[in-house]
Amino acid sequence: MTGKAATYVEEMYIETKERYEIICITQEVERVVRASGIDDGLVLVNPMHITASCYVNDLEYGLHHDIMKWLEKVAPFYGRDGKSGEEYHHHRTGEDNGDAHLKRQLLGQQVTMPVSSGRLHLGRWEQIHYAEFDGQRRKRILIKVVGIITE
Amino acid sequence: MTGKAATYVEEMYIETKERYEIICITQEVERVVRASGIDDGLVLVNPMHITASCYVNDLEYGLHHDIMKWLEKVAPFYGRDGKSGEEYHHHRTGEDNGDAHLKRQLLGQQVTMPVSSGRLHLGRWEQIHYAEFDGQRRKRILIKVVGIITE
Amino acid sequence: MTGKAATYVEEMYIETKERYEIICITQEVERVVRASGIDDGLVLVNPMHITASCYVNDLEYGLHHDIMKWLEKVAPFYGRDGKSGEEYHHHRTGEDNGDAHLKRQLLGQQVTMPVSSGRLHLGRWEQIHYAEFDGQRRKRILIKVVGIITE
Repeated sequence: MTGKAATYVEEMYIETKERYEIICITQEVERVVRASGIDDGLVLVNPMHITASCYVNDLEYGLHHDIMKWLEKVAPFYGRDGKSGEEYHHHRTGEDNGDAHLKRQLLGQQVTMPVSSGRLHLGRWEQIHYAEFDGQRRKRILIKVVGIITE
Repeated sequence: MTGKAATYVEEMYIETKERYEIICITQEVERVVRASGIDDGLVLVNPMHITASCYVNDLEYGLHHDIMKWLEKVAPFYGRDGKSGEEYHHHRTGEDNGDAHLKRQLLGQQVTMPVSSGRLHLGRWEQIHYAEFDGQRRKRILIKVVGIITE
Repeated sequence: MTGKAATYVEEMYIETKERYEIICITQEVERVVRASGIDDGLVLVNPMHITASCYVNDLEYGLHHDIMKWLEKVAPFYGRDGKSGEEYHHHRTGEDNGDAHLKRQLLGQQVTMPVSSGRLHLGRWEQIHYAEFDGQRRKRILIKVVGIITE
């Protein structure tokens, strides 16, 4: 398929109630895809912060719980006091979110999804999520569509 | 390099013999790249299911074994009966594949690879793989090329 | 935004002093984005080797230490002699870098970042990094820009 090359970008704001929280953003990404007017291409969904993930998985709250529990097991929160000498060096800067920087890498930083016929082109269970690991403040997610407008 | 903006997409079907299995799909992706007629751009390789990964690593069967063993260590299968209170909440839905949802995130959800001169532009050892964690049924992989046709 | 479809690619060489090392490459990616002449689109940053990662996170040396320590905990180096029967099967080929193949998947294989107004479009703390897990030899990073030149 060929057409006129086109791009479109939006920065979406999000503020979670909890420090750790998972939010489904498929509808917001779909809205941006439609607003773009782009018929076919790719959409990048990227948190603009380094203590959060954008990922694709099931919209099922039991799984959300399992994901957070698993992330905590593999990349634990230690706070600023350390525990058995395991304090993150990152906390020497005064931060207490070392775990958030690791959890983000473990879950996945970002996703690029297909756009067909002006819509997200998803499998039946694919849902786009934002996972916050250092929330309760205003964060941004960048949604960028690159593709063609058919002529 | 400039040209006519173009896109192309195929959904490829795959059904593994085993529940857990790794399959090299570089040749299938290469075939789609050629079928697209696109000379230069990017190709997205994305499983349309949330219990599988597409990733790039060595085509070496010892490594395939190591990857599966490592995934099981970090994100274990617990079945539906639970074990020492470690049952995934996701299993309360009747599913038994909680581990598959986590393994997919650990190994990596998807890859976007470069296309140059109408071919995959890979390093010497880069091979594109599909890793299945809940197989023995028909699954889809989306392969989407976005780029230019030189004039 | 519409324009002339355009692509641009460079392979960047890198050789780390240490076997394990993290290097910030934001400035190199920015240079390639500018060299591309592309006004708006996406840039793929992909190591052409399967024992390295490209990822986005904080440029903070304490965090670099924490990342490497965490990767070693979750995907340990065992060398070629094995330890308590845990030797990677990959080492039967004569390699000793099984851990590097796993660390790459854990940290993240690659990133695709947005380009706006001819520049990388990053959040305040987003920095693009190259993480090497089998260095002290010449490696390549592919940087590919796909987008539009506004008319």
